[in-house]
Amino acid sequence: MKLTRRRFGRMMAALPIFVSMPRQATSEDKSKPGGLTDVAGVRVGHFTETRRPTGCTVIVVEKGAVAGVDVRGSAPGTRETDLLNPINTVQQVHAVVLAGGSAFGLDSASGVVQFLEEKGIGFDARVARVPIVPAAVLFDLGIGDPHIRPGREAGYQACLNATDGAIPEGNVGAGAGATVGKLLGPQRAMKGGLGTASIRSRKLVVAALVAVNAVGDVIDPQTGEILAGLREADGKTLANSIKQLREISSFSRSELLQSTTIGVIATNAAFDKAAMTKMAQMAHDGLARTINPVHLPTDGDTIFALSTGEISGEDLGRVGALAAAVMSEAVVRAIRKASGIPGYPSHSDLKKS
Amino acid sequence: MKLTRRRFGRMMAALPIFVSMPRQATSEDKSKPGGLTDVAGVRVGHFTETRRPTGCTVIVVEKGAVAGVDVRGSAPGTRETDLLNPINTVQQVHAVVLAGGSAFGLDSASGVVQFLEEKGIGFDARVARVPIVPAAVLFDLGIGDPHIRPGREAGYQACLNATDGAIPEGNVGAGAGATVGKLLGPQRAMKGGLGTASIRSRKLVVAALVAVNAVGDVIDPQTGEILAGLREADGKTLANSIKQLREISSFSRSELLQSTTIGVIATNAAFDKAAMTKMAQMAHDGLARTINPVHLPTDGDTIFALSTGEISGEDLGRVGALAAAVMSEAVVRAIRKASGIPGYPSHSDLKKS
Repeated sequence: MKLTRRRFGRMMAALPIFVSMPRQATSEDKSKPGGLTDVAGVRVGHFTETRRPTGCTVIVVEKGAVAGVDVRGSAPGTRETDLLNPINTVQQVHAVVLAGGSAFGLDSASGVVQFLEEKGIGFDARVARVPIVPAAVLFDLGIGDPHIRPGREAGYQACLNATDGAIPEGNVGAGAGATVGKLLGPQRAMKGGLGTASIRSRKLVVAALVAVNAVGDVIDPQTGEILAGLREADGKTLANSIKQLREISSFSRSELLQSTTIGVIATNAAFDKAAMTKMAQMAHDGLARTINPVHLPTDGDTIFALSTGEISGEDLGRVGALAAAVMSEAVVRAIRKASGIPGYPSHSDLKKS
Repeated sequence: MKLTRRRFGRMMAALPIFVSMPRQATSEDKSKPGGLTDVAGVRVGHFTETRRPTGCTVIVVEKGAVAGVDVRGSAPGTRETDLLNPINTVQQVHAVVLAGGSAFGLDSASGVVQFLEEKGIGFDARVARVPIVPAAVLFDLGIGDPHIRPGREAGYQACLNATDGAIPEGNVGAGAGATVGKLLGPQRAMKGGLGTASIRSRKLVVAALVAVNAVGDVIDPQTGEILAGLREADGKTLANSIKQLREISSFSRSELLQSTTIGVIATNAAFDKAAMTKMAQMAHDGLARTINPVHLPTDGDTIFALSTGEISGEDLGRVGALAAAVMSEAVVRAIRKASGIPGYPSHSDLKKS
C-alpha cells in the first residue's frame, strides 16, 4: 500500500489521533520518570512537521560536551562523525541532531549551526567560533510526500523549542515518521516513535533519547514480550520476526531500507573521547536487547554519547552498562508513547483492539 | 577466596563432579540439537586440561573459509585478526582457535599451525603453505594454578580430537575455566562453559559455538530469566547485576579482568570478507541479548564468522539475524551444560538446591 500524497492527506484529516499537535499529545508526559534533560546543561527541542510525519530533534549542550559515536548499522546517514574519532583534535560538540528525511534531513544540522553561531557558541578558531554539530538521520520518506523533509529551518526551530524540562515523546521530532516491524513490508508494520529515559545513582545521571525506526520487533527485555513489530496477516496480532526469518528465504530489501534507529546517551560523568566512544558502543547493547533484528546491512543505527564532565571518578564499565540499560528503557518508552497513523497502528492501538 | 595450587588440587580430588573427564561428562549430549559441525566441512576439537580447569577449542576448516571478526570487548587477546580486515589480501582461514590462559593461551594457535602444516594445508605462498589461524583467548588464570595454560601441545591435541560429529559442551576446551557473574568478585560468581547450537532453514545452516566467561549475568532472552550470574550473599539465589550497578559506586576492576566471551559463527552460505565481518558484528547482538553487562572495558569479547561458501544467494541481513539468534542459543546452552567446580556452582547446581 503505497500512499500518494493526496490520499495520505485525506487519511490524516480523517484521523484526529494523528493531527493532534505534539505538545498536546504529550502533555500527560509531564509526570514521566526522567529523560535526557535530567543531565544538567542538556536541552532538547523537537521540530515536528505538520504536513506529513517527519521532523528533527536537537540536543543542545551550549557549554560543550565530550562526545563519542558508534555507527553499527551498515546504511548510515551521518555528519561530523569523523571528528569524533578519538585520534582527532576537537574534543567537544555543542549539539547533536537526530532527523527524519534520510540524507536530505542532514540539512537540519545546518540550522542548528546557524542558531549556535548567532549565540556565539562554537570551537574557537580565532577568526570564527565554529559550532560542532554531529548528526544522524533515519529513513521515513515512505510515510507521505517524500519531498517534505526536515531542513535548515526545521533545525533552527528545534533549537528555539529546546527546553531543559520534560521532553515530549511518541510521534514527535525525529520519531514523527518512525515505524517498526517492516520485515514483510509496510502493510504489516507498526508505528515507532521517540522515547527518553534516565537513571540516577547518587550524583551520577545517565540518560538516553532514541528515535526507533526499525525493521525488527521491539521487545520488553524484562519479560521477552514483543511490544510492537511485524503483524500477522490479520493485522491485529503480533508475529515474531525471528521466527519468520527462520522460514522465509529473503527479506523485501527495498522496504528494509526504510529503517534506522538513532539515539543519544548523555551523562554528567567526566570521560574523554575514547571512553565516550566505548560508551556509545555499549549503549548499542540496549538496542540489541529491545530490537530484533537490529544492526542490519540496511539499517543506519547510530548512537552518540555526550559527557558534560560534571562529576569525576566514575567507572566507565559501570556507566557504560547503565547507558545500555537506559537506552533499553528509552526504546520501550518510544513504543509505548507512539500513536497510530494511517496504515501504522501503535502498541496502544493493538492493546485496545 | 584466592585458591592456592595445593588447596585447589585437594578440593578437586574431593569433588567427583569436576574430575569426571569431558567425554564422559558429555556423553549424554549425543542427542543434542545441532551444533557448529552441522556446517559441512567444519570440524571441532577440544583439549581440556586435567590439572586445572582450562583448555582450548579448535575449529578446523581444511578447505578454507572466508572469515570476518568483530572485537567488541576492550581488553582483547587475539592473533591474526588484522588479516581479517576486508581490505587485506588473504581471503580464507583454515582454522580458528579459542583458548583459556589469557595472552599465554595464544600459544595454542601455534600447535594448530603445526598440525595444518604437517597436513599440507595453508595459503599457497609458493615456497611454503602458510596455515591461517586466527585466535582469541579468555582469562581463566584465577581458577587454580595460573602457570598451567593451554600451549602449543594443547592446540595440536585439540586438532587430533577434532570431529565432524557431536561437540562436547559444558566444562570443556576453552570453556573449562570459564566463569560468570563476577561483578562483586569470585565469591559470588558461578560456572560458565562452552556451548554450541545451529539453525537450519532449507539448505541454509547457521551455527554458533561460544565459551562464556563474563562479568555479567546470563539471561534467557525468551523470558528475561537470569540463568546464572551474580549470587546473593546467601550463595543460593541470583542477584541482578544491573540492579546492583545502579546502586554500587564501582566494580572491583581487578576481578573484572577475569572475563571475556569468545565465539565463532559458521555458515554454509557464500559471502565475502566484508559480509562476514558484518555477520560477526551482528552476532554480538546474540551476546548482548543473553549476557548483561557485556562488552565491558575489561572484557575481550570477540566473535569470528566463517563461510564455507556451499550455497549462494542468501541475504546477509537474514543470515546475520539468524547468526545473532543462534549465538544466543549457544550462550544459553553453555550455561545449562556447565558443571560446578569448587567455589563456582553451575546453573544446574542452583536449580537443585
